[in-house]
Amino acid sequence: MKKNIGQTLALYPTPAVVVGTEVNGKVNWLLVAHVGIIGHDRIMLSMHKAHYSNQGVKTTGKVSVNMVDVDMLERADYVGCVSGAKTDKSKVFAWHPGEAGTPVIDASPLVMECEVVDNYETDTFDNFICKITNTYAEEDILNDKGKPDYSRLKLVLFEMPNYTYLRTGGEIAKCTKLGKTFRLQN
Amino acid sequence: MKKNIGQTLALYPTPAVVVGTEVNGKVNWLLVAHVGIIGHDRIMLSMHKAHYSNQGVKTTGKVSVNMVDVDMLERADYVGCVSGAKTDKSKVFAWHPGEAGTPVIDASPLVMECEVVDNYETDTFDNFICKITNTYAEEDILNDKGKPDYSRLKLVLFEMPNYTYLRTGGEIAKCTKLGKTFRLQN
Repeated sequence: MKKNIGQTLALYPTPAVVVGTEVNGKVNWLLVAHVGIIGHDRIMLSMHKAHYSNQGVKTTGKVSVNMVDVDMLERADYVGCVSGAKTDKSKVFAWHPGEAGTPVIDASPLVMECEVVDNYETDTFDNFICKITNTYAEEDILNDKGKPDYSRLKLVLFEMPNYTYLRTGGEIAKCTKLGKTFRLQN
Repeated sequence: MKKNIGQTLALYPTPAVVVGTEVNGKVNWLLVAHVGIIGHDRIMLSMHKAHYSNQGVKTTGKVSVNMVDVDMLERADYVGCVSGAKTDKSKVFAWHPGEAGTPVIDASPLVMECEVVDNYETDTFDNFICKITNTYAEEDILNDKGKPDYSRLKLVLFEMPNYTYLRTGGEIAKCTKLGKTFRLQN
Protein backbone atom coordinates (compact mmCIF):
# COMPACT_ATOMS: atom_id res chain seq x y z
CA MET A 1 0.00 0.00 0.00
CA LYS A 2 1.45 3.32 -1.05
CA LYS A 3 1.32 6.53 0.93
CA ASN A 4 0.34 9.85 -0.68
CA ILE A 5 3.28 12.18 0.07
CA GLY A 6 1.79 15.22 -1.67
CA GLN A 7 3.04 16.91 -4.81
CA THR A 8 6.62 15.70 -4.42
CA LEU A 9 8.82 16.12 -7.47
CA ALA A 10 10.30 12.61 -7.53
CA LEU A 11 11.81 12.22 -11.02
CA TYR A 12 15.34 11.59 -9.75
CA PRO A 13 18.22 10.99 -9.91
CA THR A 14 19.32 13.31 -12.71
CA PRO A 15 22.85 13.89 -14.04
CA ALA A 16 24.64 16.92 -12.56
CA VAL A 17 26.34 19.23 -15.05
CA VAL A 18 28.44 22.37 -14.86
CA VAL A 19 27.13 24.91 -17.35
CA GLY A 20 29.85 27.15 -18.73
CA THR A 21 29.17 30.48 -20.36
CA GLU A 22 30.65 33.94 -20.72
CA VAL A 23 29.14 36.81 -18.75
CA ASN A 24 30.45 40.36 -19.13
CA GLY A 25 33.64 39.14 -20.77
CA LYS A 26 34.48 36.49 -18.17
CA VAL A 27 33.83 32.77 -18.03
CA ASN A 28 31.29 31.76 -15.39
CA TRP A 29 30.24 28.33 -14.13
CA LEU A 30 26.98 27.09 -12.64
CA LEU A 31 26.00 23.67 -11.34
CA VAL A 32 22.67 22.56 -12.85
CA ALA A 33 20.82 19.29 -12.31
CA HIS A 34 17.30 20.14 -13.43
CA VAL A 35 17.89 19.10 -16.99
CA GLY A 36 16.12 17.10 -19.66
CA ILE A 37 16.26 15.50 -23.08
CA ILE A 38 13.92 16.50 -25.91
CA GLY A 39 13.67 14.07 -28.81
CA HIS A 40 17.04 12.88 -30.03
CA ASP A 41 18.85 16.14 -30.63
CA ARG A 42 17.99 18.68 -27.95
CA ILE A 43 18.61 19.12 -24.25
CA MET A 44 16.94 21.40 -21.73
CA LEU A 45 18.67 23.30 -18.92
CA SER A 46 16.33 24.65 -16.25
CA MET A 47 18.00 27.63 -14.55
CA HIS A 48 16.37 30.00 -12.05
CA LYS A 49 16.15 33.52 -13.50
CA ALA A 50 18.09 34.94 -10.55
CA HIS A 51 21.28 33.17 -11.67
CA TYR A 52 24.06 35.37 -13.01
CA SER A 53 24.84 32.80 -15.73
CA ASN A 54 21.47 33.32 -17.42
CA GLN A 55 22.57 36.72 -18.71
CA GLY A 56 25.53 35.11 -20.44
CA VAL A 57 23.42 32.34 -21.95
CA LYS A 58 21.02 34.92 -23.40
CA THR A 59 23.75 37.24 -24.70
CA THR A 60 26.06 34.67 -26.23
CA GLY A 61 23.46 32.05 -27.25
CA LYS A 62 25.85 29.24 -26.41
CA VAL A 63 26.93 27.13 -23.45
CA SER A 64 29.17 24.25 -22.56
CA VAL A 65 27.53 21.41 -20.65
CA ASN A 66 30.23 19.66 -18.64
CA MET A 67 29.25 16.29 -17.14
CA VAL A 68 30.40 16.04 -13.53
CA ASP A 69 32.44 13.05 -12.37
CA VAL A 70 33.38 12.23 -8.79
CA ASP A 71 36.87 13.76 -9.09
CA MET A 72 35.55 17.23 -9.99
CA LEU A 73 32.59 17.19 -7.59
CA GLU A 74 34.09 19.46 -4.93
CA ARG A 75 34.58 22.28 -7.45
CA ALA A 76 31.26 21.58 -9.14
CA ASP A 77 29.48 21.79 -5.80
CA TYR A 78 31.32 25.05 -5.06
CA VAL A 79 30.11 26.74 -8.27
CA GLY A 80 26.59 25.80 -7.18
CA CYS A 81 27.13 27.53 -3.81
CA VAL A 82 28.39 30.98 -4.80
CA SER A 83 27.06 33.49 -7.32
CA GLY A 84 29.10 34.87 -10.19
CA ALA A 85 27.55 38.27 -9.45
CA LYS A 86 29.61 38.43 -6.23
CA THR A 87 32.49 36.01 -6.79
CA ASP A 88 34.74 35.58 -9.81
CA LYS A 89 34.43 31.86 -10.53
CA SER A 90 36.38 31.97 -13.81
CA LYS A 91 39.45 30.26 -12.33
CA VAL A 92 37.67 27.43 -10.50
CA PHE A 93 38.15 25.12 -13.48
CA ALA A 94 41.00 24.91 -15.98
CA TRP A 95 39.43 25.04 -19.44
CA HIS A 96 40.05 25.67 -23.09
CA PRO A 97 37.70 26.96 -25.79
CA GLY A 98 35.87 24.32 -27.82
CA GLU A 99 35.53 24.62 -31.59
CA ALA A 100 32.26 26.55 -31.08
CA GLY A 101 33.94 28.90 -28.59
CA THR A 102 32.43 27.69 -25.33
CA PRO A 103 34.57 26.97 -22.25
CA VAL A 104 35.29 23.22 -22.12
CA ILE A 105 36.40 22.06 -18.66
CA ASP A 106 39.64 20.05 -18.78
CA ALA A 107 38.69 17.92 -15.77
CA SER A 108 35.30 16.88 -17.19
CA PRO A 109 35.46 13.58 -19.07
CA LEU A 110 32.47 14.37 -21.30
CA VAL A 111 31.36 17.80 -22.51
CA MET A 112 28.75 19.05 -24.95
CA GLU A 113 29.02 22.42 -26.64
CA CYS A 114 25.51 23.68 -27.30
CA GLU A 115 23.72 26.35 -29.23
CA VAL A 116 20.73 27.79 -27.36
CA VAL A 117 17.81 27.64 -29.80
CA ASP A 118 14.85 28.55 -27.56
CA ASN A 119 13.76 29.42 -24.03
CA TYR A 120 10.67 27.68 -22.64
CA GLU A 121 10.17 30.34 -20.00
CA THR A 122 8.15 29.72 -16.84
CA ASP A 123 7.41 32.14 -13.96
CA THR A 124 10.80 32.05 -12.29
CA PHE A 125 12.88 29.84 -14.57
CA ASP A 126 14.60 30.11 -17.91
CA ASN A 127 14.43 26.67 -19.47
CA PHE A 128 17.01 26.85 -22.20
CA ILE A 129 16.50 24.52 -25.15
CA CYS A 130 19.85 23.63 -26.67
CA LYS A 131 21.11 21.83 -29.75
CA ILE A 132 24.41 20.00 -29.55
CA THR A 133 27.24 21.39 -31.70
CA ASN A 134 30.16 19.23 -30.56
CA THR A 135 30.68 16.55 -27.95
CA TYR A 136 34.12 15.96 -26.48
CA ALA A 137 35.14 12.85 -24.59
CA GLU A 138 38.34 11.71 -22.93
CA GLU A 139 39.56 8.79 -25.03
CA ASP A 140 39.89 6.48 -22.02
CA ILE A 141 36.13 6.64 -21.34
CA LEU A 142 35.20 5.56 -24.88
CA ASN A 143 34.39 1.91 -25.53
CA ASP A 144 35.40 -0.09 -28.60
CA LYS A 145 32.45 1.37 -30.52
CA GLY A 146 33.68 4.90 -29.79
CA LYS A 147 30.76 5.61 -27.42
CA PRO A 148 31.05 6.96 -23.87
CA ASP A 149 31.09 4.05 -21.41
CA TYR A 150 28.65 5.17 -18.71
CA SER A 151 29.53 2.28 -16.44
CA ARG A 152 33.15 3.57 -16.30
CA LEU A 153 32.49 7.32 -16.25
CA LYS A 154 31.68 7.72 -12.50
CA LEU A 155 29.19 10.47 -13.26
CA VAL A 156 27.54 12.22 -10.35
CA LEU A 157 23.76 12.16 -10.04
CA PHE A 158 21.54 14.50 -8.03
CA GLU A 159 18.33 14.12 -6.10
CA MET A 160 16.47 17.08 -4.61
CA PRO A 161 14.30 15.56 -1.84
CA ASN A 162 17.35 14.84 0.37
CA TYR A 163 19.69 17.23 -1.48
CA THR A 164 22.17 14.44 -2.15
CA TYR A 165 24.71 13.41 -4.78
CA LEU A 166 24.60 9.76 -5.81
CA ARG A 167 26.89 7.49 -7.79
CA THR A 168 26.06 6.01 -11.18
CA GLY A 169 25.98 2.23 -10.79
CA GLY A 170 26.88 -0.59 -13.13
CA GLU A 171 25.06 -2.09 -16.09
CA ILE A 172 21.92 -4.15 -15.49
CA ALA A 173 20.97 -5.16 -19.03
CA LYS A 174 20.80 -4.00 -22.61
CA CYS A 175 17.51 -2.29 -23.52
CA THR A 176 14.87 -4.48 -25.27
CA LYS A 177 16.72 -7.70 -24.30
CA LEU A 178 14.51 -8.53 -21.30
CA GLY A 179 11.35 -7.26 -23.00
CA LYS A 180 11.77 -9.28 -26.17
CA THR A 181 11.54 -12.59 -24.31
CA PHE A 182 8.76 -11.53 -21.91
CA ARG A 183 5.43 -13.37 -22.32
CA LEU A 184 2.30 -12.35 -20.43
CA GLN A 185 0.75 -15.26 -18.50
CA ASN A 186 -3.01 -15.54 -19.00
CA MET B 1 43.15 15.63 -24.54
CA LYS B 2 39.54 15.11 -25.49
CA LYS B 3 38.29 13.70 -28.77
CA ASN B 4 35.46 15.35 -30.71
CA ILE B 5 32.87 12.58 -31.14
CA GLY B 6 30.38 14.70 -33.10
CA GLN B 7 26.95 15.83 -31.98
CA THR B 8 26.47 13.01 -29.48
CA LEU B 9 23.60 13.46 -27.05
CA ALA B 10 25.49 12.58 -23.87
CA LEU B 11 23.28 13.89 -21.02
CA TYR B 12 22.87 10.48 -19.39
CA PRO B 13 21.97 8.51 -17.39
CA THR B 14 18.32 9.48 -16.96
CA PRO B 15 15.66 7.78 -14.83
CA ALA B 16 13.44 5.31 -16.70
CA VAL B 17 9.69 5.65 -16.10
CA VAL B 18 6.59 3.82 -17.25
CA VAL B 19 4.00 6.35 -18.38
CA GLY B 20 0.44 5.17 -17.76
CA THR B 21 -2.54 6.61 -19.57
CA GLU B 22 -5.92 5.58 -20.97
CA VAL B 23 -6.32 5.21 -24.71
CA ASN B 24 -9.67 4.33 -26.25
CA GLY B 25 -11.04 3.17 -22.89
CA LYS B 26 -8.10 0.93 -21.98
CA VAL B 27 -5.04 1.50 -19.88
CA ASN B 28 -1.80 1.62 -21.85
CA TRP B 29 1.84 1.71 -20.72
CA LEU B 30 4.94 3.12 -22.36
CA LEU B 31 8.54 3.15 -21.19
CA VAL B 32 10.01 6.65 -21.42
CA ALA B 33 13.50 7.81 -20.45
CA HIS B 34 13.84 11.09 -22.30
CA VAL B 35 12.47 13.16 -19.46
CA GLY B 36 13.31 16.37 -17.67
CA ILE B 37 12.62 18.68 -14.76
CA ILE B 38 11.42 22.25 -15.22
CA GLY B 39 11.81 24.54 -12.19
CA HIS B 40 10.54 22.95 -8.99
CA ASP B 41 7.05 21.87 -9.98
CA ARG B 42 6.98 20.54 -13.53
CA ILE B 43 8.34 17.56 -15.38
CA MET B 44 8.72 16.95 -19.10
CA LEU B 45 8.06 13.67 -20.93
CA SER B 46 9.49 13.50 -24.43
CA MET B 47 7.46 10.97 -26.45
CA HIS B 48 7.75 10.33 -30.20
CA LYS B 49 4.52 11.30 -31.98
CA ALA B 50 4.18 7.81 -33.43
CA HIS B 51 3.50 6.32 -29.97
CA TYR B 52 -0.03 5.08 -29.33
CA SER B 53 0.07 6.51 -25.78
CA ASN B 54 0.30 10.10 -27.04
CA GLN B 55 -3.36 9.99 -28.14
CA GLY B 56 -4.37 9.09 -24.58
CA VAL B 57 -2.22 11.80 -23.04
CA LYS B 58 -3.81 14.40 -25.31
CA THR B 59 -7.39 13.17 -24.81
CA THR B 60 -7.32 12.66 -21.03
CA GLY B 61 -4.82 15.40 -20.10
CA LYS B 62 -3.35 13.22 -17.37
CA VAL B 63 -0.74 10.53 -16.88
CA SER B 64 0.87 8.43 -14.19
CA VAL B 65 4.66 8.48 -14.10
CA ASN B 66 5.82 5.23 -12.51
CA MET B 67 9.48 5.10 -11.52
CA VAL B 68 11.06 1.81 -12.59
CA ASP B 69 12.96 -0.30 -10.07
CA VAL B 70 15.02 -3.40 -10.84
CA ASP B 71 12.22 -5.82 -9.90
CA MET B 72 9.80 -4.42 -12.50
CA LEU B 73 12.37 -3.88 -15.25
CA GLU B 74 11.46 -6.93 -17.34
CA ARG B 75 7.86 -5.70 -17.73
CA ALA B 76 8.94 -2.07 -18.13
CA ASP B 77 11.30 -3.08 -20.92
CA TYR B 78 8.51 -5.10 -22.55
CA VAL B 79 6.11 -2.12 -22.69
CA GLY B 80 8.92 -0.23 -24.45
CA CYS B 81 9.20 -3.02 -27.07
CA VAL B 82 5.60 -3.45 -28.26
CA SER B 83 3.02 -0.88 -29.39
CA GLY B 84 -0.40 -0.50 -27.78
CA ALA B 85 -1.81 -0.05 -31.30
CA LYS B 86 -1.15 -3.75 -31.98
CA THR B 87 -0.91 -5.36 -28.52
CA ASP B 88 -3.19 -4.92 -25.51
CA LYS B 89 -0.70 -4.00 -22.76
CA SER B 90 -3.36 -3.20 -20.13
CA LYS B 91 -2.66 -6.35 -18.11
CA VAL B 92 1.14 -6.15 -18.06
CA PHE B 93 1.05 -4.35 -14.72
CA ALA B 94 -1.35 -4.72 -11.80
CA TRP B 95 -2.56 -1.22 -10.93
CA HIS B 96 -5.23 0.78 -9.17
CA PRO B 97 -6.54 4.25 -9.92
CA GLY B 98 -4.89 7.10 -8.03
CA GLU B 99 -6.92 9.93 -6.51
CA ALA B 100 -6.64 11.87 -9.78
CA GLY B 101 -7.78 8.83 -11.76
CA THR B 102 -4.53 7.76 -13.40
CA PRO B 103 -3.33 4.13 -13.37
CA VAL B 104 -0.83 3.71 -10.51
CA ILE B 105 1.35 0.60 -10.91
CA ASP B 106 1.34 -1.57 -7.78
CA ALA B 107 4.89 -2.81 -8.37
CA SER B 108 6.38 0.68 -8.71
CA PRO B 109 7.74 2.02 -5.41
CA LEU B 110 7.31 5.67 -6.38
CA VAL B 111 4.65 7.12 -8.68
CA MET B 112 3.59 10.64 -9.67
CA GLU B 113 0.11 11.41 -10.95
CA CYS B 114 0.39 14.36 -13.31
CA GLU B 115 -1.80 16.85 -15.08
CA VAL B 116 -0.56 17.69 -18.58
CA VAL B 117 -0.45 21.50 -18.78
CA ASP B 118 1.34 22.07 -22.09
CA ASN B 119 3.05 20.42 -25.05
CA TYR B 120 6.38 21.82 -26.20
CA GLU B 121 6.05 20.25 -29.62
CA THR B 122 9.04 19.62 -31.86
CA ASP B 123 9.12 18.07 -35.38
CA THR B 124 8.58 14.46 -34.41
CA PHE B 125 8.09 14.61 -30.64
CA ASP B 126 5.39 15.60 -28.20
CA ASN B 127 7.16 16.97 -25.16
CA PHE B 128 4.45 16.94 -22.53
CA ILE B 129 4.84 19.44 -19.70
CA CYS B 130 3.22 18.06 -16.56
CA LYS B 131 2.37 19.35 -13.10
CA ILE B 132 2.36 16.89 -10.23
CA THR B 133 -1.00 16.21 -8.60
CA ASN B 134 -0.11 13.41 -6.18
CA THR B 135 3.00 11.41 -5.41
CA TYR B 136 2.69 7.92 -3.95
CA ALA B 137 5.51 6.05 -2.27
CA GLU B 138 5.82 2.64 -0.66
CA GLU B 139 6.32 3.32 3.04
CA ASP B 140 9.44 1.15 3.23
CA ILE B 141 11.32 3.42 0.82
CA LEU B 142 10.67 6.57 2.86
CA ASN B 143 13.35 7.78 5.25
CA ASP B 144 12.76 9.24 8.72
CA LYS B 145 11.98 12.63 7.16
CA GLY B 146 9.24 11.06 5.04
CA LYS B 147 11.24 11.54 1.81
CA PRO B 148 12.00 8.85 -0.77
CA ASP B 149 15.39 7.30 -0.02
CA TYR B 150 17.04 7.17 -3.44
CA SER B 151 19.98 5.13 -2.17
CA ARG B 152 17.52 2.32 -1.23
CA LEU B 153 15.10 2.58 -4.16
CA LYS B 154 17.11 0.61 -6.76
CA LEU B 155 15.81 2.81 -9.57
CA VAL B 156 16.77 1.94 -13.11
CA LEU B 157 18.62 4.48 -15.22
CA PHE B 158 18.93 4.62 -18.99
CA GLU B 159 21.63 5.67 -21.42
CA MET B 160 21.07 5.86 -25.16
CA PRO B 161 24.57 5.66 -26.69
CA ASN B 162 24.93 1.96 -25.72
CA TYR B 163 21.19 1.38 -25.17
CA THR B 164 21.78 0.16 -21.63
CA TYR B 165 20.05 0.14 -18.25
CA LEU B 166 22.23 1.12 -15.30
CA ARG B 167 21.84 0.93 -11.53
CA THR B 168 21.51 3.92 -9.24
CA GLY B 169 24.49 3.89 -6.90
CA GLY B 170 24.96 4.97 -3.30
CA GLU B 171 25.30 8.40 -1.74
CA ILE B 172 28.49 10.39 -2.29
CA ALA B 173 27.78 13.55 -0.28
CA LYS B 174 25.13 16.04 0.65
CA CYS B 175 24.84 18.97 -1.75
CA THR B 176 26.66 22.20 -0.76
CA LYS B 177 28.72 20.38 1.91
CA LEU B 178 31.86 19.99 -0.23
CA GLY B 179 31.40 23.39 -1.86
CA LYS B 180 31.06 25.36 1.35
CA THR B 181 34.55 24.42 2.52
CA PHE B 182 36.24 24.75 -0.88
CA ARG B 183 38.81 27.56 -1.17
CA LEU B 184 40.41 28.52 -4.47
CA GLN B 185 44.25 28.50 -4.27
CA ASN B 186 45.83 31.56 -5.83
